[in-house]
Amino acid sequence: MTGPVFDAAFRDQLDCLLAWRRDVRHFQTRNMPDGLLDTLLEAACHGPSVGNAQPWRFVRIRSPERRAALIAEVDTQKRAAGEAYSGDHKALYETLKLHGLREAPEIVAVFCDEQSETGHGLGRATMPETLCWSVVTAVQTLWLSARAHGIGMGWVSIINPAGMNAMLDVPAHWRFIALLCLGYPERETDTPELVRHGWQDRLPPTTTRLER
Amino acid sequence: MTGPVFDAAFRDQLDCLLAWRRDVRHFQTRNMPDGLLDTLLEAACHGPSVGNAQPWRFVRIRSPERRAALIAEVDTQKRAAGEAYSGDHKALYETLKLHGLREAPEIVAVFCDEQSETGHGLGRATMPETLCWSVVTAVQTLWLSARAHGIGMGWVSIINPAGMNAMLDVPAHWRFIALLCLGYPERETDTPELVRHGWQDRLPPTTTRLER
Repeated sequence: MTGPVFDAAFRDQLDCLLAWRRDVRHFQTRNMPDGLLDTLLEAACHGPSVGNAQPWRFVRIRSPERRAALIAEVDTQKRAAGEAYSGDHKALYETLKLHGLREAPEIVAVFCDEQSETGHGLGRATMPETLCWSVVTAVQTLWLSARAHGIGMGWVSIINPAGMNAMLDVPAHWRFIALLCLGYPERETDTPELVRHGWQDRLPPTTTRLER
Repeated sequence: MTGPVFDAAFRDQLDCLLAWRRDVRHFQTRNMPDGLLDTLLEAACHGPSVGNAQPWRFVRIRSPERRAALIAEVDTQKRAAGEAYSGDHKALYETLKLHGLREAPEIVAVFCDEQSETGHGLGRATMPETLCWSVVTAVQTLWLSARAHGIGMGWVSIINPAGMNAMLDVPAHWRFIALLCLGYPERETDTPELVRHGWQDRLPPTTTRLER
């Protein structure tokens, strides 16, 4: 079997996609086209998974009451996390918008099914955490697929994970991984919001590489 | 600022990339072109990270002695993990090739720097594990970028993570995430090796989705 050959033009566009993927917190309220979310979730399921366990579970939030509860939880956690900062960082923290849960037309919670027999445990005897890492790769796959459709995504992580199963009425053995906002972004940029606001610059590549 | 608009032709190719990304364990021994690994690692650094913490640390293995030690460790762990199976699964397990550490021209170990101040803790007060999840998204980004260059990648996870820092002489506060093999694959396929060998089929999409 011969696989597809990707050319330089495709690779340039892929690099462009990577460079313009953003963690989006500012969304337009207009809906995504019918069926697009399903298309994106299908793409996400092409992420790798340890032992082909496919442990990702996606929960699309439709209920306005559940959306309101999520907003309340994240706003509470944002305030609590702010206590850790002082001075310039404190002032800057207060100005950062950390989620688009009010505006985004789609909200998806992502869990890892930690009791599924799928994959028969292969590849995770010594590193059981690779099961939920498989779900994380699906999130990045979803992110890139969304951006290719002009859809922005934001990953909200200031949340008490232990409360999510009851709040969303999902099985207790699912581990909460991510709360995602999806929709058309208000603006597009190749610069991360935290760089633009002076919170954290990009590191030079040499900082992150060694040879041994 | 107006971002790039990706068209249906690009999206079709991206879907094709996702479908033909594989966890590769069978490599040709020929080298990758000079500089390509650096190009791929640069792409990986465009993965998202919590608070823009960029905690990924990539260690390129050059020493034959270190490669030999990694092979010994993984082969030992593969045998140990095999004890958990019996019957048909046991027989099938014995036939599975789980890594290409002997043949792959490039081996990269990936760690998470858990003490870096970069990102100033933003976004991980309630879920500190999102720091190492950021590194996991970089691995998936690397995987896709590699495949776009015709390079296959395999993630080896049957390894004792606690032993990796000493074996590779990296700081003790780096957390081991992944051992990656990279090189030209022996063959290409759109079917995961574990599906082909009857270990684990793909799940239907409905298995992984709920509405709430």
